[in-house]
Amino acid sequence: MNETGRIEAFSDGVFAIAITLLILEIKVPHEFVAGGLGTALMHEWPSFLAFLASYFTIGVMWMNHHRLFTLIGAADDVLMGLNLLLLLGVTFIPFPTAVLAEHLTTGNDRIAGVFYAGCFFVMSIVFQVLWRYAIRKDGILLPEKIEEARAILRQYMGGPLFYLAAILIALASGTACLIWSLLVAIYFALPPRLWSRR
Amino acid sequence: MNETGRIEAFSDGVFAIAITLLILEIKVPHEFVAGGLGTALMHEWPSFLAFLASYFTIGVMWMNHHRLFTLIGAADDVLMGLNLLLLLGVTFIPFPTAVLAEHLTTGNDRIAGVFYAGCFFVMSIVFQVLWRYAIRKDGILLPEKIEEARAILRQYMGGPLFYLAAILIALASGTACLIWSLLVAIYFALPPRLWSRR
Amino acid sequence: MNETGRIEAFSDGVFAIAITLLILEIKVPHEFVAGGLGTALMHEWPSFLAFLASYFTIGVMWMNHHRLFTLIGAADDVLMGLNLLLLLGVTFIPFPTAVLAEHLTTGNDRIAGVFYAGCFFVMSIVFQVLWRYAIRKDGILLPEKIEEARAILRQYMGGPLFYLAAILIALASGTACLIWSLLVAIYFALPPRLWSRR
Amino acid sequence: MNETGRIEAFSDGVFAIAITLLILEIKVPHEFVAGGLGTALMHEWPSFLAFLASYFTIGVMWMNHHRLFTLIGAADDVLMGLNLLLLLGVTFIPFPTAVLAEHLTTGNDRIAGVFYAGCFFVMSIVFQVLWRYAIRKDGILLPEKIEEARAILRQYMGGPLFYLAAILIALASGTACLIWSLLVAIYFALPPRLWSRR
Repeated sequence: MNETGRIEAFSDGVFAIAITLLILEIKVPHEFVAGGLGTALMHEWPSFLAFLASYFTIGVMWMNHHRLFTLIGAADDVLMGLNLLLLLGVTFIPFPTAVLAEHLTTGNDRIAGVFYAGCFFVMSIVFQVLWRYAIRKDGILLPEKIEEARAILRQYMGGPLFYLAAILIALASGTACLIWSLLVAIYFALPPRLWSRR
Repeated sequence: MNETGRIEAFSDGVFAIAITLLILEIKVPHEFVAGGLGTALMHEWPSFLAFLASYFTIGVMWMNHHRLFTLIGAADDVLMGLNLLLLLGVTFIPFPTAVLAEHLTTGNDRIAGVFYAGCFFVMSIVFQVLWRYAIRKDGILLPEKIEEARAILRQYMGGPLFYLAAILIALASGTACLIWSLLVAIYFALPPRLWSRR
Repeated sequence: MNETGRIEAFSDGVFAIAITLLILEIKVPHEFVAGGLGTALMHEWPSFLAFLASYFTIGVMWMNHHRLFTLIGAADDVLMGLNLLLLLGVTFIPFPTAVLAEHLTTGNDRIAGVFYAGCFFVMSIVFQVLWRYAIRKDGILLPEKIEEARAILRQYMGGPLFYLAAILIALASGTACLIWSLLVAIYFALPPRLWSRR
Repeated sequence: MNETGRIEAFSDGVFAIAITLLILEIKVPHEFVAGGLGTALMHEWPSFLAFLASYFTIGVMWMNHHRLFTLIGAADDVLMGLNLLLLLGVTFIPFPTAVLAEHLTTGNDRIAGVFYAGCFFVMSIVFQVLWRYAIRKDGILLPEKIEEARAILRQYMGGPLFYLAAILIALASGTACLIWSLLVAIYFALPPRLWSRR
């Protein structure tokens, strides 16, 4: 019985919507002091950068979510609850993204960066808990997949540390925190590092 | 024939979108009287609280919807109509959520709370009708699942009462109504109480 | 080969999103002349009425779309193109809905109503063309379902006429047009009339 | 093992949401200089034209994405990464669409058109890379489908050239660029040209 089918469908929906809603936070420039539309668009670089960082972070989370559920044979209610908690973070991301984009050049960039990276930090913890629960609890993972799941979990260990570093970086500069977050997402998305050891 | 496949897909879509649209109601703070972004974000606590309460309420409704449809073998048109009525409530939730969040500190919190809790009350009634119809009508539930469905329905009996209480609480305080609604959702989401009797 | 699976998934997504985006057009009342939030919410009746009419119209269209595709065995490219044209109408609906809701009490209600009903009229024509193409073209419908499809098509004949009437009614009153559209959707959703002759 | 099921589901979600969010960029007219709502709606022709062009462009991309994945047997991580890059473009489209719609009559139409067509150009390149990777890498395409994939790829060769032309046209006129983009999408959607050679 494919009990996890609808959990995946619902999760896919939430991931897909959250990742697509990000674009609503980038506003069309209306008034230009000088230089026309081209300059005005370039001045929106904080929005583009935040869009990219959040897009790839959600995208990589979806890829990992997808990987986890290919190993799962059946879901129990704790797993559904943990999944709902993870998706809470996913639906929330557009807000800290917009906050950071808007305040990257206002002098409030550091507090905005801490808020942004803090959200990712909490989500990476929830993801860890989800993986560990799936591994430890009998009957969740397909028996022949447990070793593979353990190997993947070891690779993900770094997640919370990377985002803890992002918080520390934000204490110095919101822009640096954003670039770091983008690099972390790209690092996790790159197949050679993360996936080749399969 | 898996006749319910597309009903579930469409419903999953509506649940996933409604739950994700909630974040659009939380606005990025622009102007601060004093204290910077951190304080401004903290002043948005009504939006965060309303977001959380509505997120978990929709999430738990999705979990229950999911449970119901695992017991259903085929859908008829009355069931599709009732489902459409339930989804009407789900798509509507972002509106009372925004109304309550915005008016929690304006002196209109009680009427906003009654509106908010009233929507949940109506939805819990529709959910009851949906369950009862599925149990009573021949050919909807898988025959071997009818007993399980009856047991679950007994657990859900409390739903309308909990939200009736939420309306009464709103008459005293919108904030208390919101906290109560959040607690009700968490209570329904907690596996030990609701699910362990399987 | 279930070639239509992804067409249905994509269509379900579009229907589910369009129906859920409708709520974004209802604005939270901010300033009240007098009487507080309750009165302000009641003054938004045009938005609620338009929300309901469009919700049920999209919902019923989804139900019909669902019915059609249960009879279809394989899709060709003309069918995909016609489906894309139908979905164009579905994604467009939130706009005329918002236009009519906003102008129902501004003296522009009749032109807004003609616009609103005109959109539904065009969509009902596209739906007719889609059904007829599926019936006439070899290899689309499952062979044993062609008679059933013909019977359903006869029931849908009235669709364009109902919306032509809606346009005429809008020439007299936008509100009457909206109520008529809501009644048409409910009429099509009611199982006894539409579905019992299966 | 249908490993590509969830990639398709997630991609379908992103396509469906991006195509539906386009409507949010068309604003309800509020203030009219003269002539009422009808005239005001007609003055929004840039928004309608941009909506149509982007709708059909995303729609056609979805159809091609769908075609590609019917030929694919299993996805590896590079393919998932390329797919995520393609979807980045899809989620981004509502923004250049809104920029072009808003600036089509402001004297900034040419730079807006270059931005709009440039996005499509980049996406058509990514699509080419995705197809080529799927064809060249062993184990992605179903073996019996490789010839078909090659034939389709030859038809798509024109894509980047068409959008390069769109950029050049935008240097003369944003409106002409928009009409050209719409024609390109309709050309790709027309079954006789593109699909008949199956």
